[in-house]
Amino acid sequence: MPDAEHPGTVLTDEELRTLDAHWRAANYLAAGQIYLMSNPLLTEPLRPEHIKPRLLGHWGTSPGLNLVYTHLNRVIKARDLNALCIWGPGHGGPSVFAGSWLEGSYSETYPDVTRDAEGMAKLFKQFSFPGGVPSHVAPDVPGSIHEGGELGYSLAHAYGAAFDNPDLVVACVIGDGEAETGPLAASWHSNKFLDPVHDGAVLPILHLNGYKIANPTVLARLPEPELDELLRGYGHEPIHVTSDDPLQVHRAMAEAFDAALDRIAELQRTAREDEGAERPHWPVIVLRTPKGWTGPAEVDGEPVAGTWRSHQVPLAGVRENPEHLRQLEAWLKSYRPEELFGADGRPRADVLACVPSGARRLGATPHANGGLLVRGLPIPSLDDFAVPVEKPGSALHEPTRVLGALLRQIMKDTATRRDFRLVGPDETASNRLQAVLDASGKAWQAQVLQVDEHLDRHGRVMEVLSEHLCQGWLEGYLLTGRHGLFSCYEAFVHIVDSMVNQHIKWLKTSRRLPWRAPIASLNYLLTSHVWRQDHNGFSHQDPGFVDHVLNKSPEVVRVYLPPDANTLLSVADHALRSRDYVNVIVAGKQPCFDWLSLDQARAHCARGAGIWEWAGTENGAEPDVVLACAGDVPTQEVLAAAQLLRRHLPELAVRVVNVVDMARLMPREEHPHGMSDFEYDGLFTADKPVIFAYHGYPWLIHRLAYRRTGHRNLHVRGYKEAGTTTTPFDMVVRNDLDRYRLVMDVIDRVPGLAVRAAAVRQQMADARTRHEAWIRDHGTDMPEVADWTWAS
Amino acid sequence: MPDAEHPGTVLTDEELRTLDAHWRAANYLAAGQIYLMSNPLLTEPLRPEHIKPRLLGHWGTSPGLNLVYTHLNRVIKARDLNALCIWGPGHGGPSVFAGSWLEGSYSETYPDVTRDAEGMAKLFKQFSFPGGVPSHVAPDVPGSIHEGGELGYSLAHAYGAAFDNPDLVVACVIGDGEAETGPLAASWHSNKFLDPVHDGAVLPILHLNGYKIANPTVLARLPEPELDELLRGYGHEPIHVTSDDPLQVHRAMAEAFDAALDRIAELQRTAREDEGAERPHWPVIVLRTPKGWTGPAEVDGEPVAGTWRSHQVPLAGVRENPEHLRQLEAWLKSYRPEELFGADGRPRADVLACVPSGARRLGATPHANGGLLVRGLPIPSLDDFAVPVEKPGSALHEPTRVLGALLRQIMKDTATRRDFRLVGPDETASNRLQAVLDASGKAWQAQVLQVDEHLDRHGRVMEVLSEHLCQGWLEGYLLTGRHGLFSCYEAFVHIVDSMVNQHIKWLKTSRRLPWRAPIASLNYLLTSHVWRQDHNGFSHQDPGFVDHVLNKSPEVVRVYLPPDANTLLSVADHALRSRDYVNVIVAGKQPCFDWLSLDQARAHCARGAGIWEWAGTENGAEPDVVLACAGDVPTQEVLAAAQLLRRHLPELAVRVVNVVDMARLMPREEHPHGMSDFEYDGLFTADKPVIFAYHGYPWLIHRLAYRRTGHRNLHVRGYKEAGTTTTPFDMVVRNDLDRYRLVMDVIDRVPGLAVRAAAVRQQMADARTRHEAWIRDHGTDMPEVADWTWAS
Repeated sequence: MPDAEHPGTVLTDEELRTLDAHWRAANYLAAGQIYLMSNPLLTEPLRPEHIKPRLLGHWGTSPGLNLVYTHLNRVIKARDLNALCIWGPGHGGPSVFAGSWLEGSYSETYPDVTRDAEGMAKLFKQFSFPGGVPSHVAPDVPGSIHEGGELGYSLAHAYGAAFDNPDLVVACVIGDGEAETGPLAASWHSNKFLDPVHDGAVLPILHLNGYKIANPTVLARLPEPELDELLRGYGHEPIHVTSDDPLQVHRAMAEAFDAALDRIAELQRTAREDEGAERPHWPVIVLRTPKGWTGPAEVDGEPVAGTWRSHQVPLAGVRENPEHLRQLEAWLKSYRPEELFGADGRPRADVLACVPSGARRLGATPHANGGLLVRGLPIPSLDDFAVPVEKPGSALHEPTRVLGALLRQIMKDTATRRDFRLVGPDETASNRLQAVLDASGKAWQAQVLQVDEHLDRHGRVMEVLSEHLCQGWLEGYLLTGRHGLFSCYEAFVHIVDSMVNQHIKWLKTSRRLPWRAPIASLNYLLTSHVWRQDHNGFSHQDPGFVDHVLNKSPEVVRVYLPPDANTLLSVADHALRSRDYVNVIVAGKQPCFDWLSLDQARAHCARGAGIWEWAGTENGAEPDVVLACAGDVPTQEVLAAAQLLRRHLPELAVRVVNVVDMARLMPREEHPHGMSDFEYDGLFTADKPVIFAYHGYPWLIHRLAYRRTGHRNLHVRGYKEAGTTTTPFDMVVRNDLDRYRLVMDVIDRVPGLAVRAAAVRQQMADARTRHEAWIRDHGTDMPEVADWTWAS
Repeated sequence: MPDAEHPGTVLTDEELRTLDAHWRAANYLAAGQIYLMSNPLLTEPLRPEHIKPRLLGHWGTSPGLNLVYTHLNRVIKARDLNALCIWGPGHGGPSVFAGSWLEGSYSETYPDVTRDAEGMAKLFKQFSFPGGVPSHVAPDVPGSIHEGGELGYSLAHAYGAAFDNPDLVVACVIGDGEAETGPLAASWHSNKFLDPVHDGAVLPILHLNGYKIANPTVLARLPEPELDELLRGYGHEPIHVTSDDPLQVHRAMAEAFDAALDRIAELQRTAREDEGAERPHWPVIVLRTPKGWTGPAEVDGEPVAGTWRSHQVPLAGVRENPEHLRQLEAWLKSYRPEELFGADGRPRADVLACVPSGARRLGATPHANGGLLVRGLPIPSLDDFAVPVEKPGSALHEPTRVLGALLRQIMKDTATRRDFRLVGPDETASNRLQAVLDASGKAWQAQVLQVDEHLDRHGRVMEVLSEHLCQGWLEGYLLTGRHGLFSCYEAFVHIVDSMVNQHIKWLKTSRRLPWRAPIASLNYLLTSHVWRQDHNGFSHQDPGFVDHVLNKSPEVVRVYLPPDANTLLSVADHALRSRDYVNVIVAGKQPCFDWLSLDQARAHCARGAGIWEWAGTENGAEPDVVLACAGDVPTQEVLAAAQLLRRHLPELAVRVVNVVDMARLMPREEHPHGMSDFEYDGLFTADKPVIFAYHGYPWLIHRLAYRRTGHRNLHVRGYKEAGTTTTPFDMVVRNDLDRYRLVMDVIDRVPGLAVRAAAVRQQMADARTRHEAWIRDHGTDMPEVADWTWAS
């Protein structure tokens, strides 16, 4: 964008020399990490025993990432910029370790890895070494909020970090491999949701080094005008840096960064001074440099630098192959390490000339360690939001609507702090949380028509038809020290299964790093669940996310199935206050009986599972049978079954147990919430039949409880893929989770029931037959079910 | 694209009139499905009892889809076009049912829904009615290969259908809601992989009706020049149709379709006559019409047509609200049904004037019922590819490399038929399947540089860094009657969890529809698995896809863990011959001992699980302990443990059981492959300790086997999230799956072992300690492990 009035950046020779020195030093350190066990400064001639026995790592992306690190340093220092960088090409661990070590933040974080020869030796050895550090940008890396193992989420993370951080510039390096993924492709349009007034800026740096593992990349092989159209179509103004000449590239990079940052400042000024401004078209830098640049040009007669052969380790078998060893030495020496590091291994002044200081350093920004910044969320007293419950089952509420009022208050109370967001794929109202819209509109920067409602340039409710964006934005937002909730249709949260995996892995690793402060938990509200897809049918029916999550690290994952409105409030309150967890809450949006008062709900949720004495027919002794339930619909069916048993078999001692916190069922050794066997047997008995009505796939309960003494007596009903477009009661009948079936299960499993039970069993079977006929004729649930109420 | 020389399409008044009649008829039928229980032709004044008790469905997208159906009919008939349509806005079930019913294909598929008043009544009543048809485009819908419940996959499916179908034009309606998803955003670049010579054409129709459930859509709110840049950046030439005037829109649609199809024909002619032609820029139609168009303009004082309020049911509570009832009647009558249908309910000639005949009809094309077209894959004899195994464990092979040779032969033998593709996210070579590249290059239409290898405009190996595209392309390819294999890193297949869900649901439903012929199975080869992520570490370690899949319909899902090269061949052979399954094969790419000869492998895979007598120390009586294994790494550790036991505790009778087919462990009643209890007890005993070394999360084995008599004696080792960048043996030690731990488990669980066992146990513990020290110092596995070989 330089023109006659803005001639652009012109680097002095001195600047050019020192920038190049930093870059060469970073390149040296990146290569050193991949190859060297010892002799880090090459003070001795390189010998096989200096080389790591297993050569692991990714050189290809490193020189480009180093270039970005060097030039970000320059502009941060020159402008006193508050910056964070997301390193999308995550295999570039060596680069980010190198940049952090050079600026000193690495040694401050890991004091044993000092900024001298000894520390350099440790830095090299630990990389991709058993017990050392991973080859990716990962939680271990200072300055990072983005795990680089699974590609696709860098840009969404960058936007999440920028939201409500008006002074922050988030640079985001996007590899051209990553750019082919769906989540990344969708992320470009995030700029339609970025408020130039209250949010910071995202500066994407699309790094076209031309190749992924074994293939060219799509974007690198588009003619430049076509690529420019694409980027402009994404709402960006491209600035190109294309070169394979280091000095030229330094000049162009400096110019590009200055132009981009000037433009960002101008766009922000315009927006902040003139509210009515148009949606900005933000700059994007397109950096085109060779893959594996400055590495070996040719190995064994094949071109390597500038090709996919640089992707991982350009020179293999270095211990065994003297020619490769020689090539490696020449390559490392080409950076002239003696000019870059003193004899003690400390980086020389030239190398550090561009490096900013203190918290401005990329490896030291608190935004990358969000737990340092996070404040407790102002959660109002639940008493103001709870529904009154005089006696169980006397009224109906939509649980998510009740929660919506609480969220509205939180949204209101964070209006100034701006550290709470609600994300969802266009379902806030569909999931009946719309009260929140009274306190904040929906973020939207594109065109607004008169008929639109609740769109707001400054909104903190985020709706976009992409679960990937919802997840990625929220992750970035939480990792930089804020709070949020993701409300999603239960079936479609599987779209982000793999993203959740990676976030759980991130949290698991972070929790073990003493320097990473705890961040707010990632909270899911899964609603529009499997049992109430009256409109949508089979394609919208899948309760398996709970199974997916419960496979992961128990120190991170929590799953709650509140059975009514007040338990949902209590669980949500707990989740929103918690740290470093992934909380999955499954709750209905349809009218549901209120079972517990707020106080009862709090006590019940604190226990996680408990006996509902008022629902059963125990009289002090051990029960004859336990009816257990987890989830709103199963709870209703269990209570209806308990009522039928009370009426038809009053002599039977029935215990009703409700489970809110699924991990309670696990052994205490396997999950921090797990019950002891003593507690478990106290609830479920050690030898009585347990009929368990569960919200999801029935075998999950077996997987959680298989070690319990009474496991052989556990009989679980749940969703067994008998899905379709139908009425709520027909769904439970099709899956054998209905009240009549549960009563039949009890009769089938309690030994020694009198002849009378056979007649009751037949009545239950008749009711199911009656249902089949009724629904065929009427398409609705029969009145005895539709109008059922609880009466103890 | 019309210009002076090509004035474009000019419809006659007669054409205009009949096209509009078809469209109005379809609109009438779509609205009728949502609302009417009876009185389908409005022969009586509309009364509450004619209205469905539950109003479900999505009107908003219907008029647009109907418009596309009408105009596709016109061009199919005019050009004798071989066309298939993918209906992305899947909630538009009513439209596709309407189009199919009008053209007669519906009644041919479902003879009880006749093309007359009686059939119309059935068509109306069954929609979104319990026991009826779902509200989406689903397997039940003639002419569909695309489930419309979960959005994002339409365009990838369209490309999959077009590959290797040179005469086919695949129209693909993309809703502007769906366009916000990641998978759809990535799919646009599929045109860089479409061979204009051997593949058909994809004609995307981006339907901007402006709203999703409750919000405007991003693409609809871009200024048109910006949208055009985006589409050109995607490699398309946009053709716009924008109107809210029916007659105008008919003219513009006819013109747009003709221009697009002329352009497609021209691009294909150029490519097919001149091999060296440039990558074509294919047309895209941008259709901008109001949401819920022709529906009620205003309801209860709020604007409805043209807004998100039309998304589902524009008029609610029609049975109860007389004003809404009146409005519904006026709306339905606005289509002038008496002009469209005879007194008998049959569509009049005008309505059917545009409709093509026979297999050209969209609801009758065999491409949408791929099982009609699929041919058996030519699979050569495995004898030519098997590795010779004189005795177990005497040689090492990389199983996937062995499979690669088989795939090369299949690729070669389908060179003319072109009905087999291999897809993967840039990992064919990384997964050691590169032999296949001798038989086919990698599909690539963009720029090629001299340094590139194996890129081929006509290739059938497909690599793109998007698991979503791999999955979507392959689904489209299989659903239209071809074959394929998806090779993927094990951890990252979770990226497509939700797509797999939907494909399994599709297959489950299809299998119940007698008119849908079985298609080739969707085959996964999951490799680069959890135990061998030496480079990549924790982020690349996740064996949970098996758990995800085994939750789904047992009639569709199959999971295989072949322990060596020959068993992989046998399993792959079986999978590639099978129909209507999702086969998940988990196999290593690293050198692995050959345990079974091909004949042994065939027999073992046919049984799915069996005793490896040669590995154990049974002597006719019942064993003292069973060492079970599933997966290549666990099998090696179990054999090493068996060897240690043989040496150190020769008196112990050890049985080794290997499981290839995971579903064998399930009860016979729960999965067609499930074993009877008799078989299970025969393998695993009813009362002896079983130490099971499993590839993935250990509790899966419990979930499969919890009903077995011997379940209490089952002790499972597997992956428990102890992941990192480390050596292969260190990974198994960290997860307690190593040989030494397994021996300790045996000693801990076999009752009555002599004192000698305690000493052996200590030796095992010492070996683990030795490992810890060695790896800390050397970063490699200690020689006793690294150089271990099997010797019985």
